[in-house]
Amino acid sequence: MSGKVYLVGAGPGDPELLTVRAVRVLGEAGVVLHDALVSREVLELVNPAAKVLHVGKRCGQPGFSQQQINALLTSYAKCARVVVRLKSGDPLIFGRAGEEIEALRAAGIPFEIVPGITAALAAAAAAHVPLTDRRTSSRLVIATHHYALNENVPQRESSASPRTTFALYMPGTDYQQVADEMRRSGLQDDTPCLLVSRASTPQQQTCLTNLRQLASLPPLPAPVVMVLGSVCAAARSSAAASEDCTEPLAIEGAASYSVGNVSGG
Amino acid sequence: MSGKVYLVGAGPGDPELLTVRAVRVLGEAGVVLHDALVSREVLELVNPAAKVLHVGKRCGQPGFSQQQINALLTSYAKCARVVVRLKSGDPLIFGRAGEEIEALRAAGIPFEIVPGITAALAAAAAAHVPLTDRRTSSRLVIATHHYALNENVPQRESSASPRTTFALYMPGTDYQQVADEMRRSGLQDDTPCLLVSRASTPQQQTCLTNLRQLASLPPLPAPVVMVLGSVCAAARSSAAASEDCTEPLAIEGAASYSVGNVSGG
Repeated sequence: MSGKVYLVGAGPGDPELLTVRAVRVLGEAGVVLHDALVSREVLELVNPAAKVLHVGKRCGQPGFSQQQINALLTSYAKCARVVVRLKSGDPLIFGRAGEEIEALRAAGIPFEIVPGITAALAAAAAAHVPLTDRRTSSRLVIATHHYALNENVPQRESSASPRTTFALYMPGTDYQQVADEMRRSGLQDDTPCLLVSRASTPQQQTCLTNLRQLASLPPLPAPVVMVLGSVCAAARSSAAASEDCTEPLAIEGAASYSVGNVSGG
Repeated sequence: MSGKVYLVGAGPGDPELLTVRAVRVLGEAGVVLHDALVSREVLELVNPAAKVLHVGKRCGQPGFSQQQINALLTSYAKCARVVVRLKSGDPLIFGRAGEEIEALRAAGIPFEIVPGITAALAAAAAAHVPLTDRRTSSRLVIATHHYALNENVPQRESSASPRTTFALYMPGTDYQQVADEMRRSGLQDDTPCLLVSRASTPQQQTCLTNLRQLASLPPLPAPVVMVLGSVCAAARSSAAASEDCTEPLAIEGAASYSVGNVSGG
């Protein structure tokens, strides 16, 4: 008789952006395994009697291998009624949930997935940007710069219709490289480009620029989502924007920089 | 001195999939303008003293024009402290939020966006499908079949790398047409195809098939999300699946059909 594992989306950081179900499950948890990006405020909602393990990267160093995390999930499910695997954003976007689902199925352990607000939605909400707009954008592509580059596959090749909005997760700190790649994919130099750092947290920063100016921007603190496409032009009016494209158009928020590149859904 | 407008995501239907902030704002609302797809259970969370207006389509007939909705938003903001524009899913995905944001800006009315669980995330959670998987899928494309066809633009042309997952919103009832289009975009006949009808509600149905068999499937009750890509193969083991591809692989859930095609983020 094993417990049940919940793969839960912790959302972008603001605890009010958790789903009601996520809050309930955290309150019932016997064990919580969480990633590096899950905020302190979200962890405060965990049942005080629960065992809480940080299994994410620490200072860029991997904490536990995916195999170890899978083993922890299946073994804790044998001694706790409710085991929560807490992932930033949504658990099914860039979160290695596929491997955990396979391990749970193989071990015959019941599980449930509780969706979360993924970073693109939080970033767009912060900057008042419609990700699609029937007048100008008919689709949203969620991708990582990181994975596309590692694989040496032109994942975004030929996909850059002007009616496409891109949300790039984990863009890293080499914005020149990102700009070059997006230009090769067919995006024009004047494509608006919105960066949102630490969306929904008190440290949130939004910065509106364009593909031409992107490389001259100092890297923002991770996690960052980069949104590219004509819909971002609307973000201008939500900030004290300069129309002078030799400077980033607008930077909002605090300036406590600590650059890094971490994963999260 | 005007009130504030909240563009709020109502999520896929299950009231437990609202964010904590959405629940709070609904409880504080003086006026709520909602779409057709927002569930009764979600509307039960609205402040009982609030004026509630259904401004979505009724039986396929448009209720209010977008211009009328914009006018209602700005005029109610002058007499209520909290005005909520409640949209199914996430307000910034296929929800005409762009036009409402413009109207609010033009009228100088303060507004805030509260993200919601968009249908693709709810569908994937229901069927235990990782939308990305570092081993097989590096990006997610959220698109509507509907819009792409109306515009006569091959939106998805050349974008069908085997490492892409597609989430098609509002696929309509002509699955043959969807299958033909996705095949022209480069998807193979054996690409797994998951349909989730009314995700997260008691009427939820999931159906796993492939591109070859899609056209022979009876249309499922709207709203439907269609997920295409190798990651869907994993949905098989979550249902009593037949490996015989001459039949849809698995249909789960109730069978109360009422076909339609409605919009929602």
